Parts: sequence; structure tokens; C-alpha cells
Amino acid sequence: MEGHLTDGVVEVGPNGRERYYDSRGYGRPRGEGVALSRVEAAHLLHRGDLDAVDGRGIAAFLVDNADIVVPFLVYKDLRDRGFYLSPAREGWVETPEGAAFVVHPRGEGPWDGTVEHRVRVRTERGTVALEDVGDVVLAVVDEESELTYLRTDTPEIAGSSPTGIDASAGGALLEDRVLCWNPPSALHGRGFYGQPMDREDGALQLSLLEAAHLAEEGVLDVDGGVEAIEARGRDVEGERFDRRLLAYRTLRERGVVPKTGFKFGADFRTYADVDGVESLGHSELLVRVLPADAVASPRDIALDVRLAHGVRKRMVFALVGDGTVRWRSVERLTP
Amino acid sequence: MEGHLTDGVVEVGPNGRERYYDSRGYGRPRGEGVALSRVEAAHLLHRGDLDAVDGRGIAAFLVDNADIVVPFLVYKDLRDRGFYLSPAREGWVETPEGAAFVVHPRGEGPWDGTVEHRVRVRTERGTVALEDVGDVVLAVVDEESELTYLRTDTPEIAGSSPTGIDASAGGALLEDRVLCWNPPSALHGRGFYGQPMDREDGALQLSLLEAAHLAEEGVLDVDGGVEAIEARGRDVEGERFDRRLLAYRTLRERGVVPKTGFKFGADFRTYADVDGVESLGHSELLVRVLPADAVASPRDIALDVRLAHGVRKRMVFALVGDGTVRWRSVERLTP
Repeated sequence: MEGHLTDGVVEVGPNGRERYYDSRGYGRPRGEGVALSRVEAAHLLHRGDLDAVDGRGIAAFLVDNADIVVPFLVYKDLRDRGFYLSPAREGWVETPEGAAFVVHPRGEGPWDGTVEHRVRVRTERGTVALEDVGDVVLAVVDEESELTYLRTDTPEIAGSSPTGIDASAGGALLEDRVLCWNPPSALHGRGFYGQPMDREDGALQLSLLEAAHLAEEGVLDVDGGVEAIEARGRDVEGERFDRRLLAYRTLRERGVVPKTGFKFGADFRTYADVDGVESLGHSELLVRVLPADAVASPRDIALDVRLAHGVRKRMVFALVGDGTVRWRSVERLTP
Repeated sequence: MEGHLTDGVVEVGPNGRERYYDSRGYGRPRGEGVALSRVEAAHLLHRGDLDAVDGRGIAAFLVDNADIVVPFLVYKDLRDRGFYLSPAREGWVETPEGAAFVVHPRGEGPWDGTVEHRVRVRTERGTVALEDVGDVVLAVVDEESELTYLRTDTPEIAGSSPTGIDASAGGALLEDRVLCWNPPSALHGRGFYGQPMDREDGALQLSLLEAAHLAEEGVLDVDGGVEAIEARGRDVEGERFDRRLLAYRTLRERGVVPKTGFKFGADFRTYADVDGVESLGHSELLVRVLPADAVASPRDIALDVRLAHGVRKRMVFALVGDGTVRWRSVERLTP
């Protein structure tokens, strides 16, 4: 059979409906015929199930429609994995916004109106506005045309760690850290604040974030108070310090203990249920703090997600803007 | 005993030499006394082996010398691990440039003049000019005062993969990739170029880098030739494309096969000894291509190195400038 490209869809005439839509889930019916997206038509051409579109085979059709090569690779891969897909076109699926395809649950098709994943397609050279994800799977096609699927969610961040600490300590602000020479044991032992300088010894090293939070809580006394600590933070990090401090406080308030994620290239690793430093479990999340309007490259996201997976943690982005934190998680998906 | 800070060193009088230098490797002799760096003095104060410097104990001494807190943490950690260190001061060690300390081999000390590591100290908020590393260990002190050691080298990049390919193919430039519909089998099978679209099928997807290299070698024929491919590369990546292409070519010329490192957040993963795609081994390196004057944050380096380690590869930076590529490798070190 042959198709004709009209108004951005490929129409296939009499019997097209039965052959392509009813039996194999391509396109949408138009009378006895079928309307195919260009990507679907390319897939049928590639499989040899459609002879030509306006006289063109797959190679010539892609040259004329080079903008669909990347979505075609994603469509093909998901089809090869045994899924039916619907192009996310107005009138074809319920919520087409922000997606290229809707993947139907395994064994179901466009007739069922069910949705397993909404898929957004990106090349590795594209960009991802992190605030706009959370309900889509990112299908990233790298420069060698290999595919990576990244599932995004909007996680609930909550834990059971104690949110207050009943103690007081004095500290000295030294460059970009605070030293407490005689800290109460609860500070590190129960609250998991700071890092002891020696195992036996009491001296405790606090980050500027920890110190600012503790000073705000009335636990830590430093010359100049919380203002001095925050001013130092802004000196060494600029606005990034305020973003990170808000994320830090929000985590602490929700019963989640943030500790430095430096060794993982992140802002924080977090512990949801700290009962004391002696019985510390595995940290669950890696958190990267970014401005709310941050745009990431798929490569940076892939790096974060791969690393988090390798250390059995979940990668979470804390998007800070207007005094609030929004959370996005990203993880590898094998469809 | 008590010390006195004069001209940036702490002098300790009669018997200082025997007590601090001869028996424990601190400072440098000055007659029967000893001259200590401020970091060494802080360490002795902290251990209680020096009573005071100009009347100050450790807490007050660090407040007055806040700039040495970070190097002090590194010095202390390496001492705790059983090493003797020499501050890298002019006249104290042979090549003090670019280092804070020289670490002597285990069991040896400043008397021996031997060097195990030259250590440069950075906070996580500092910067690292990648061109300037290669012969130092970076000691990075994170915001919670935990330490990470990164050993840097200037690796030799060489492999035994065939550098030429005796075949010819035609391809179509489609957005940011090239499709070959009927490629000679040697292209992927022997040269490990491209990614087949289907296992059974012959269509081969080439990256712009692969295509540009193959066109330059006279293997690939594309409308507009190598110029068209390179122009497309610059359209989608800017100057970064030229840097990556030079690194790609240099690797191929040295018998090392670069493939995309996207899944690892890098530019390339590389195979040093490709005999054919059927018998492909483990890829050895992750390569990130950067401008020669690139300045990286310790956090970004830590992320790369941690990921590379997790997938049993070596992290290598390809620094491109003035038509040449210089190589730096970085790996975790446990002293």
C-alpha cells in the first residue's frame, strides 16, 4: 500500500484502518482508511509494511523529514520491545502536552485509552527544564543513536529523624567552616551534625550550612550570630549558598538528615531515619540543589543518575525559587 | 615548650631540633632549635606536644591563622595515617611549586629527601586548572571537612586497534547524525564504527564525529563531504565539536577506539585493542574533552572519578588547545 502526506499526517486509503489500526495499533481511523503520524509511517516503511509515501521509500522519506529521525528511533525501540504507542497529537491521546508518544501498558493498545508512560524525546545535545519533568519518561538519543530512558517523578521527601536538638554549643567561624572545641555529644551523636576532628576527641567540624541552621535554631553560638555565618556563606558561594541552605532546612524540617554529597559530586546525601550516629543506615538519596528554572543537559542528568544508581541511591533535584523547594527525582528505566 | 611566630614560621628554641625535627620530622633545624611551619605548629598544639605559640593554644592560634585550617586538616590526616610530611617551602624541599606538602614514603622522613607524593590542597569550593595537574595529589577538603585524595597523572594514550579501514560507503546527513543504508560490514564489524539500526539489518547509524573522521579518511561519501559534516557539527555544538573531533581523531590515530560515553556522562569510553566487534573487551577509559585552559570544580572532578571507578574505568581529561591534545588522568587515592 501507499500513503500520502497531507497536513502533517500520512493518509492510507481503503482497508488501511483494518490493516494498520485495528490489527496493529498504528495511527487513528479515518473512515475505512487510517491517518498515520510521519513517525508511524517511517516505521511501517522501514519494516516493509508500507510500500511508499508519495513514491518515497524509507531512506528518501527520512531525508525529506529529517526532524523525525530521532523520534523514529525512540518509536522503533519501544515497538521492538513489544509496546503499542500512540503519537501524542491533539485529539489522538488525552494529554498530549509535553510528550511525543504515549506508551500503552504491555498487552494493551490505542483502543484501550490506557497509559503506561508519557515519553518526551531529547537528543543528548538537547536541554531539559527540570521543573517541567516529573510526569514523563525522557527518552534520550545519544550521538551514536543509543537510547537511554529516564523516568521522572515528583517524590515526597519525608523521614523520621528528630527535627530539634536540646543542647547548646559555642563555635569559631574559620574561613568556610565552623569549629566547636567542646560540643555537647548530642550534636553529632544524636543529630548527626558535623564531623569529629578525632575519634576520641570532642572537637567538631561543622559546615557553614549546618552552622547556619544550628545558629538559627538557637543551638549554636558564634560571634556575629547566624548573620555572620550566612554572610560568610554568600562570600564563598554567592546565591548558591541561600539555595542550598533552604534545601538543607527543608530536609531537616521534614525529618531527613542531609550530609555532604561531595564524594558523589552532589550537594547532599540524605538519611531519612537517623536514630543516632551509632546505628546509621545507608543514605537513600543524592540531592542536587539548583535554581527553579535550571536547564540541565541530558548528559549531566545521565551522569548523576548513573552514579546514584551505582551507589544504590535515588537521584533527586531540589529546585529552589521564591522561597520554596520543589522536588524531582530521575532514575534509569528499562521499559 | 613554647614557640614564637616570626616571618611566617614558628621558632622553637633550645632542644627544639632534637625533640621536633630529629625524632619526629617536624620543621627544619635552626641551630639547636627548629623552625616550624604554622601548620606543623598547629598540629603540635593540637596534640599537646607544644604548649603555646606566643601564648596561644590551638583554638586561639587557628582563629588568628584561619587560612591554615584547611591545610592543617590535610596535614593532620596524613600524619594520622603514619606519614612524615614536609611543608613545601622554598629551601625546605626540592620542588615546592604547586604543592602545599611533600609526603615522604612510608618509613622515611625529611632527612631522606625522598618523595612519595606532592600534595596540593583545595577546598571543595576551590578550583582546579586541569592543565596544571599531572604530577600532584589533590587533597580536597569538603564542606564538612572530610578528605578526598585524587592522584593525577599524565597518561600515555595508545592502543593496538587498526587505524585504517579499507572500504567505502555512502551516507545521508540527517540532522545531527548520519545514516548508511548499505554499509560495508567492515565498518562496524572491524572498525567498530556506528551502531546498527537492527541486528539483522544493514543500516548503520554514525555519529557526526565518526562520520567526519570517516569522510576525512576517504571512506564515507556524504553530500557536501567532510565540510558539510563538520559544519553541521559546529551548528549543533559550536567549538566543542572541533575539540571533540580532534580528540576523536587523536585517539583513532593512536589505535584507541572512542565510542560515546553518554551513559557515563562523558564524551567517550575507549577500547585500546579492538580486533573486531565480536570479541570486544571492556572499555578502559572514560574521556572528557575540555578546552586546554579549563578550570574544574573539585566537585565535578569527584563526580567523574567516582563514576569511572564504579564502572572500572580510568577517568581521563583530554585538554585541547592550539591543535594539540594533552592528557590528564585522575583517580581516587587512599594514602
